[in-house]
Amino acid sequence: MNKQFWITDQPISIEEVVKLVSRREAGAINTFVGTVREFTYGKRTLHLEYQAYLPMAEKKLEQLGQEIEERWPDARTAIGHRIGRLEIEDIAVVIAVSTPHRADSYDASRYAIERMKEIVPIWKKEHWEDGEAWIGDQKETKTYPEGSPKKEDMK
Amino acid sequence: MNKQFWITDQPISIEEVVKLVSRREAGAINTFVGTVREFTYGKRTLHLEYQAYLPMAEKKLEQLGQEIEERWPDARTAIGHRIGRLEIEDIAVVIAVSTPHRADSYDASRYAIERMKEIVPIWKKEHWEDGEAWIGDQKETKTYPEGSPKKEDMK
Repeated sequence: MNKQFWITDQPISIEEVVKLVSRREAGAINTFVGTVREFTYGKRTLHLEYQAYLPMAEKKLEQLGQEIEERWPDARTAIGHRIGRLEIEDIAVVIAVSTPHRADSYDASRYAIERMKEIVPIWKKEHWEDGEAWIGDQKETKTYPEGSPKKEDMK
Repeated sequence: MNKQFWITDQPISIEEVVKLVSRREAGAINTFVGTVREFTYGKRTLHLEYQAYLPMAEKKLEQLGQEIEERWPDARTAIGHRIGRLEIEDIAVVIAVSTPHRADSYDASRYAIERMKEIVPIWKKEHWEDGEAWIGDQKETKTYPEGSPKKEDMK
């Protein structure tokens, strides 16, 4: 795997993503792993289905990498996002950011996941016990269908 | 591996640490990986040697886990720290924290690494090009020997 940013329908290895950013100059690697959660504010998910608009999604991930380099010039970033059907506890996304010192690795990794949800065209279909709906991954807390908990109930 | 907190002289697998905290209730796993950096403020490290006061170190890691549970009741934490001789780029520590939602995973993971350096009795011997010194891991930016950069030069 030479790409630093990719979409795949295969399981993602955390070690593989970390290896892409590990280097002699780094002392810190922050990794964010997004997994499929069973219960969201009391609503039970059975499984998820992710779809992406390719190759725009990979292009946007690369843009995200550039934004991080502009803000944290010493950082190196890699992101793999899985699409297709995912079961509970499966890994949907792995973000790894290496930096010389740890504070930057946390800040840049956090930036990466928040920004990813803003700009990368990936959607998920939630299959609940009592129905299903396509949800923009980037707006998961804003576009829940009628009857689901309101944003103000969420912490 | 059933322990959630341990010291070892063997390489640590990131996937193994993540597996210890992965669960159906979690949607986010933040991982911090500390690696051996070659250059620290211009000074070149050849290799490191970590020693821990056992079993106090594991006891303190467990205490840290309890502190996290008190602050983030939905979090689950695992930490593995390696001791012995480590080469450049080797992994010294892996922290993984899972939570239902991502913000908490970042906050609790950051708490873990900062607190670890405060309370866990682990020391490292820096082997530089021009000498060597034992350094309390928890005080790495404060106890550098004479002639090394001052704290105020560090970002």
